[in-house]
Amino acid sequence: MTPLTREQCLELDRLDPLAARREAFRLPADLIYLDGNSLGALTVGAERSVARAVGVQWGIDLIRSWNVHGWIDLPATLGERVGRLIGAAPGETLVCDSTSVDLFKLAAAASLGRGARRKIVTEAGNFPTDLYILQGLAKLSPQIEVHAVPRDRIHDAIDADTFLVVLTHVHYRTAEMYDLAAMSARAHAMGARILWDLSHSVGAVPVDLRATEADFAIGCTYKYLNGGPGAPAFLYVRRELQESLQPVLSGWLGDARPFEFLDDYAPAPGVDRHRCGTPPVLAFAALDGALETFDGVDMAAVRHKSVQLSELFIALVEALPGADALTLASPRDPQRRGSHVSFAHAQGYPLMQRLISRGVIGDFRAPDLLRFGFTPLYLRFVDVWDAVRIFGEEMVAMPTGPSDDAPRLKVT
Amino acid sequence: MTPLTREQCLELDRLDPLAARREAFRLPADLIYLDGNSLGALTVGAERSVARAVGVQWGIDLIRSWNVHGWIDLPATLGERVGRLIGAAPGETLVCDSTSVDLFKLAAAASLGRGARRKIVTEAGNFPTDLYILQGLAKLSPQIEVHAVPRDRIHDAIDADTFLVVLTHVHYRTAEMYDLAAMSARAHAMGARILWDLSHSVGAVPVDLRATEADFAIGCTYKYLNGGPGAPAFLYVRRELQESLQPVLSGWLGDARPFEFLDDYAPAPGVDRHRCGTPPVLAFAALDGALETFDGVDMAAVRHKSVQLSELFIALVEALPGADALTLASPRDPQRRGSHVSFAHAQGYPLMQRLISRGVIGDFRAPDLLRFGFTPLYLRFVDVWDAVRIFGEEMVAMPTGPSDDAPRLKVT
Repeated sequence: MTPLTREQCLELDRLDPLAARREAFRLPADLIYLDGNSLGALTVGAERSVARAVGVQWGIDLIRSWNVHGWIDLPATLGERVGRLIGAAPGETLVCDSTSVDLFKLAAAASLGRGARRKIVTEAGNFPTDLYILQGLAKLSPQIEVHAVPRDRIHDAIDADTFLVVLTHVHYRTAEMYDLAAMSARAHAMGARILWDLSHSVGAVPVDLRATEADFAIGCTYKYLNGGPGAPAFLYVRRELQESLQPVLSGWLGDARPFEFLDDYAPAPGVDRHRCGTPPVLAFAALDGALETFDGVDMAAVRHKSVQLSELFIALVEALPGADALTLASPRDPQRRGSHVSFAHAQGYPLMQRLISRGVIGDFRAPDLLRFGFTPLYLRFVDVWDAVRIFGEEMVAMPTGPSDDAPRLKVT
Repeated sequence: MTPLTREQCLELDRLDPLAARREAFRLPADLIYLDGNSLGALTVGAERSVARAVGVQWGIDLIRSWNVHGWIDLPATLGERVGRLIGAAPGETLVCDSTSVDLFKLAAAASLGRGARRKIVTEAGNFPTDLYILQGLAKLSPQIEVHAVPRDRIHDAIDADTFLVVLTHVHYRTAEMYDLAAMSARAHAMGARILWDLSHSVGAVPVDLRATEADFAIGCTYKYLNGGPGAPAFLYVRRELQESLQPVLSGWLGDARPFEFLDDYAPAPGVDRHRCGTPPVLAFAALDGALETFDGVDMAAVRHKSVQLSELFIALVEALPGADALTLASPRDPQRRGSHVSFAHAQGYPLMQRLISRGVIGDFRAPDLLRFGFTPLYLRFVDVWDAVRIFGEEMVAMPTGPSDDAPRLKVT
């Protein structure tokens, strides 16, 4: 199954039905970019869309662009395009604000209807912002308790006192995946709602929010969707819950009649009520262009290639001389793994710095994880081959013993 | 004092010490843009900065740009540049999120330390998002009461049960200005904090937050600062209050050690704790470039020209044939007026549509206001002259009687 030669990788690329998608990306020739799970690459579409939004829409049409170029509709129009990738029905998805802010919006709104229930259940070691935002909500509403428990105790922690379960579908460190349907069923059986963070799923792993009966979801668009650095996030609210969900972060663009400038907030119909302030149009323009690369793409094909790339990477890495210094930190079973692969290495930080200096861009997560993302729309099998060859060279060349290098900043 | 001829306006332009700043802007030749109080014009600096952020930083340096291009520092570095324009000391201002979200952040954080006090005092007819956000906070914290009272009753409404006063310095409809120092003194005398919305002030009206003892402030950067459509907002927290203010919207980038990925939030020192999620870098890049036009600008000179332009506009409009159909809705005293001027007209909406079709871009605010903004860095005296000439022609040409035209969307 694992190709034994570089030529076999090139042959896989020739047969790859997604191969042509790579042409939509502006990739530096001297890099193998295995960090699309953190910041997706620039596309020709995003570059063109931003240039048009700046030069024509802002520069020439100015204030009129809110109407004539549909700026005011961007949260909804982009929401529909993202919604298609996560199994949302029309009118269930909105692009706006950051993942952190969107989590606060939905968790706070859900807390208003909690009745006597007090608990939010989440995972210890979840991505920090998810934990921190819930802690902030509990600071404002001290009756709320945030229970962050290990993964294997989530199921039992969801009880009759729980009003909300907040989980990240694909774990940011290990890529371990939850069973969406099973966890939703557990939450619903106990009378709770479930909110999924899809930041490391959307655009890489097929997700069907309706079929798996999710209540709420949020996620990033700057990872596998290539929306640009800090691109606006999305939020999802199941249609059946929309009219009963009252926003707390009730900004003017979530009002039913924002241009009547009335003193009392009345929520807009449906998911639109979760709009808040004026959206950053240039950031939306980048995402708008970037999403073109997903037009007509079958997410099953994306997933198939993601698994192929990841399996190839693991097999080749584990065959390297010196591989005994590495421990696979991701699930070995591809059915339980998202689209990145992490290996623990005692000198993970300096080793990743060496890879980066050789043009193989992955990232490091303290204390010891080397993390590599596999983005099926622009990564080739031969890239995996070449990256592993360099990985092997640098592992052999590493001086042994402890290192003084301290980790530096890197955004997830 | 009022120029009597177009030639006199041209002479004023020749003498204008700010005249050369206009060269930094990309203004369509066929427009007179009197809506910079809603969406500021594109600058050469913003265009260049966005192109660089997209093509070089995102496109080539990719994830490494968080460090090598200082993306991670943008909220603070841009905060300092905005802070200079509002009389903030270093370390008091942050650029992040939207005005609505930033208001929620500060009001929610202030509410944690309110003790037994229950009231937030604000103005009826304040910009809706300010009212709506406070209403949302009260929905989550039902002990909080939002008292929105008419302008002339604000002073008395601030009492010993008030923990926060939220006012907009320059009113979005009338441009009427509050006395910052007097209102701060009143709030403090009653033991309350005061939060200023500077959306219609920053970049047009000199503001000295420290001298006037403001506690908190928020504001837009897409109006007079020309940061681009939906550009990120700013927030200000007086240094003396920073360490006691606990964020509720506690996202991971407001944590003291975000890249250690810990489970428990610990606020970053100072104003940085009010960062939340990952910032939209392309929107920040536009603001970064746009702020170049304020480098070395004396805000007193900006204010002087703003008053000159506004006074000229009022005088010329009121001398038009048919001016008896207009009522000045802004304060006549320039000391009490910001940098826009509103006139009420029974057929304000169709009249504004006619002006726009002639290339004079102002905006309309229901039910009857024509609103014109005066942006000293790119507006000329001759523009005011020419705009008023067209205004006069269209007012005369207006059919009399009611109109069926319905207002359409426009973002403040």
